[in-house]
Order: sequence, then structure tokens, then C-alpha cells
Amino acid sequence: MAAYATKGKAFERDTRYVADRITREQGRSQDPHVGALDVPTWSVEPGRYRLVAARACPWANRSIIVRILLGLEDVISLGLAGPTHDRRSWRFDLDPGGVDPVLGYERLEQAYLARDPSYDRGVTVPALVDVPTRSLVTNDFPAITHDLFFEWRDHHRPDAPDLWPEECREEMEEVMERVFTEVNNGVYRCGFAGTQEAYDAAYDRLWSALDWLEERLTDRRYLMGDAITEADVRLFTTLARFDAVYHGHFKCNRNKLSEMPVLWAYARDLFQTPGFGETIDFDQIKRHYYVVHEDINPTGIVPKGPDETGWRSPHGRDRLGPRHS
Amino acid sequence: MAAYATKGKAFERDTRYVADRITREQGRSQDPHVGALDVPTWSVEPGRYRLVAARACPWANRSIIVRILLGLEDVISLGLAGPTHDRRSWRFDLDPGGVDPVLGYERLEQAYLARDPSYDRGVTVPALVDVPTRSLVTNDFPAITHDLFFEWRDHHRPDAPDLWPEECREEMEEVMERVFTEVNNGVYRCGFAGTQEAYDAAYDRLWSALDWLEERLTDRRYLMGDAITEADVRLFTTLARFDAVYHGHFKCNRNKLSEMPVLWAYARDLFQTPGFGETIDFDQIKRHYYVVHEDINPTGIVPKGPDETGWRSPHGRDRLGPRHS
Repeated sequence: MAAYATKGKAFERDTRYVADRITREQGRSQDPHVGALDVPTWSVEPGRYRLVAARACPWANRSIIVRILLGLEDVISLGLAGPTHDRRSWRFDLDPGGVDPVLGYERLEQAYLARDPSYDRGVTVPALVDVPTRSLVTNDFPAITHDLFFEWRDHHRPDAPDLWPEECREEMEEVMERVFTEVNNGVYRCGFAGTQEAYDAAYDRLWSALDWLEERLTDRRYLMGDAITEADVRLFTTLARFDAVYHGHFKCNRNKLSEMPVLWAYARDLFQTPGFGETIDFDQIKRHYYVVHEDINPTGIVPKGPDETGWRSPHGRDRLGPRHS
Repeated sequence: MAAYATKGKAFERDTRYVADRITREQGRSQDPHVGALDVPTWSVEPGRYRLVAARACPWANRSIIVRILLGLEDVISLGLAGPTHDRRSWRFDLDPGGVDPVLGYERLEQAYLARDPSYDRGVTVPALVDVPTRSLVTNDFPAITHDLFFEWRDHHRPDAPDLWPEECREEMEEVMERVFTEVNNGVYRCGFAGTQEAYDAAYDRLWSALDWLEERLTDRRYLMGDAITEADVRLFTTLARFDAVYHGHFKCNRNKLSEMPVLWAYARDLFQTPGFGETIDFDQIKRHYYVVHEDINPTGIVPKGPDETGWRSPHGRDRLGPRHS
């Protein structure tokens, strides 16, 4: 049986990714805060790469949303793996014949092995795959959305949002760091805790951060003010899964998201913004967590709840500023 | 590992109890709807019997509440087992030295074996134990609260409530039957389902019944009208555990109890009535379900949530009629 929670241990995320970048200039990021890169770089070329994601996964969900917000649908194609991967690999079991129509693969692992036959780390989504060689370029999820913005600018739609505004960049990095450690990863720290003490500490950290966000978003429509940024995308994909899986399955249950008036309205506001809600598939999300984590839910039963109709109810956040998308 | 959910099977409760009765007259119930009894009967004697219960258990919780409502505290003593029994027996691990001070037992199983050395069915609470012989009289939970009312009347407090009002008895039996099969036992049917189909069907039955109760209680303060009856006691002990354990652990998660305005106000009204709220120990309740059901929660992690402060908030049900207790 696959083990996600390790008895006696707190959860630690494996953050070793294949960290190549796809860039406009060789060896260099267009982001002035980054500059020279010390990893292999691949050239920006419309039609060359395939983004492999899964609707179930919050990390992959970010890249699905950003690709839409920036209007890159015709430039980078999208392959979608099914929700219930096995221990080694996400699978293209939603596609006809169980095969990705562009890559010809049944399992995402094949793209990883095409790159490195001895690859033995995690086979994760999102992954950018070089279509000509059908091999993995990168699965470094924070860099993927970063580079979709900074490197693919020539191909963005004309009115694409400024997801990384220079005027608040420093604060935005701090906000994203806290959201990552305390919320995006914080829910996993609760769910995969191998001791009661590790869980209790993780729970306190999570709710402390959610209370901070509830406060921060009281008079700001979005995390950085009156426009959607990368920081909102990153928070949204966790909030969208909160009541459906993290509340019960990961025991993040001080309250439901729907019981925090500000965060719940903020999440609905984003859900109802083009590019966000249509990427959410609650059925796939629930099947992923409740089926894959056999050690936490050995029966494999997937809950029918919660009632999701509330996501489409009026959010009233318009009063805080104009919608930017 | 103890198995509560059986793969491939729907849950079926073992309802074979030791069905002796404690009665005012030998072989006969004081309840005119019952009359002659075809099981052994024991005589009503103040001080002779010990009620063994556990704060964790909803079936035992009924008897703890009824004993208080009827003022039987000085007539029938109360022993309390701890929340985390092993596969065979509830244990007196909350008592000094881990021993019940009246019975001298470490494990409730000892009272069952004193009655029948070959006893091999469930060791359950509530149990009434004959103190002189330290042996089990009955663990038939519906009969226990029934008889506390009908057989011990001479010892009730003067203003004890009429928990079984004759004028609505027939309808009350129907209501209690539906509450038992669909709600009290319905949450277990969800939690112990061994197939997705059994769970899905159980979930639909449960919510259909909860919607019926939400409707029924809209213009009635209590299930049978303007006074508390046995039917309310029986529903209350399930509602008190709903958000703490059934919502997440048993996947009864269409919504929280606190999201159903009528039922939530009704539950708070009872919680705030003397005899009810003081019998509820959320910590013991959570430890019981999350620790004992190893096959559903193998990590044994007990959730810190939900926030319980809402139970003491105003319920506004007074407008529907006077409180009866």
C-alpha cells in the first residue's frame, strides 16, 4: 500500500525537481529579479511544448489557470492526466484508448524516462514536455508559471493581466512564500502528519495563516490589492480544494472555508472569474485524494459531499475594486 | 487491526443484546403498550444496580441523559468507561488505578463474563450491572431508557418530565423508528460502508431523513411538540456528534449540522438544557471514533477541530414554546 503519512514523522515535501527552464534568451531570465540562470535553458517556441497537468492536482492547477489568463492556449498545448495515478505515475486514462494524443504515452513516467532512463524521483504534474523528443523539460512548478509570464510575453493575449507587478514584487514574494509554506503545503502537513504532535502543530500553523489571510483580504479585493496576481492563483488552487478534501481528508477542520466570510467570498470571486472556475473539477479532486492516499483512506470510499452549489453564489467583492482579468 | 468497515459489504448492526429487564412487577412492564414480558426480570431496588456508560458512545449517552432528567442519580450509580476501548472491551481507564470503584473491574467484559463465562458477543455500553453479583443484567439500550422511565417512576424526581407521553405515543414510536434506522444508525451505515455503492445509498438515506427533520422541527420546538420526550434524547446524541465525528470520519458531509439552521438551533436548544450539554465531552467523542476505528483512520490522528464554541450560542427556539425539563 502506498504510504503518504509516515508513522512517527512529520511530513516533508520532496522539492527536487527537474529544473530546466524555457526562456526567451539562452541562459537568462527576462525577470530582472532573476537574470542569469545556472540551469539548462530551452528556447521559447510556439507549438513545441506540451503542458501535462491534471485537474485533480493543486500544483498543476496553477499552470492550467495561468495558461488561460495569459491566452497561451494556442501556443502551448495541454494534456490532462486522470485523477487516480498509481504510486509511480500519472496516467492518461481520460484520453481515448488511455493514450495522450500528442505524446502517444499511456503514462507520464514515459516522458520522464525519455529524458533520463534512470529517473527515480517523483513523477509529478505540472510537467512541460518537449514534443519533438517526447521528453520532459521541467516539472519545477513555481518556475513553470513564472516563466509562462516572463518568457512567453510575445505570445500573451493583448490584454493579459500583469501577474507579477513590479511595484509590489517584494511584498508579493513574501506573501507567496507564506502562502506556500503555511497554506499550500500546510494542508499536506496536516494530512500527512505521522504523529499527533506533528499534526497539532501543523493545524495551528495553518489556521494562524488562514486567519491572517481573512484579515488581509477584508479590505483588499485580491492579495496584492485591486488586481489579480500570481499570488492569487497560488492561493486559489488550495482554497478550491479546501472543503472538498482538506477539511475532512486532511483534518483541516477548525471550520470549513465556507465558514470564513472573507476568504469564502474571495474564493468565490476568483472561482467566478474566467480562467479559474472552469478549471475546477470537484469530482476529479475528490477521487484523487480519497483514492490515491490508501494509507489515510483505506476503504477508498469517496464522499458525496460537500454541496458545491455555494461556489456560484454572489460574492459581493465588487465593492472593493474592479475585477482585473 | 480491528475491522469496522468490511470490504465489499454494507454495514449491519449486531442487535443481539442481553435482554433482561429491571421491572417494578415480576414478568411485567408498567408500560401499557408492552404488558407481559417473555425475558427474565429483575426487581427495581434503589442502590442495587450500576449503570456503566461512556461519554464517547451515543447509545450510552442516552441513558446518561435520561438518568439525569428523571433524577435517578442517587438511585442508580454511574460508572464511566474511557473513550478508547480495545476490540473486546470498554475499559475503566479513567478511574484511579484503572479500576471501577464500585465493581472493582478494569474491563467491562468482566461483568459480562461474570454473567456468562462463555459470553462472546459484543461488550457494549450502556450496561446495567447488578452490584451484589457484579454481573451484567442487560445491555439492551432502547429497553434501558424505556424502563428507567416506566419502571423506576416511584424514584423519579417530583417534576420529572413525561418522556413517553401517552397522547402521542403511536406517532412517537414511528418518529423514533425512523430516527433510529435513518439517523442514529444511518451515520454508521455511511461510515462503515464497504463499497462505494453502499456508501452512496447510505448517504442519500441519511440526508433525506435530516431534511425531513429540518422541516419537521421548523414549527415544533421538540420532535413531538412543545415538550422534550425520549425521541429528542435519541436524536440529540447523534446530532451532538455530527460535526465532531460523523461529518468527516463517517463522510456524512453534504453539510455540517451547523449549516442546517433549524436542526442546529434545535440541537443547541437541547445542549443548553440541563441534563444534555453537560454529558457531552467532545474530546472523548473524537478520541473514541478516530482511535478505535483503526481501519478507517489508520494514522490514529485525532482532529483538533471543529470549533465547538457555537454550541453555547443563542438558539432562539424559545419563541416556539416553553422549555420543558
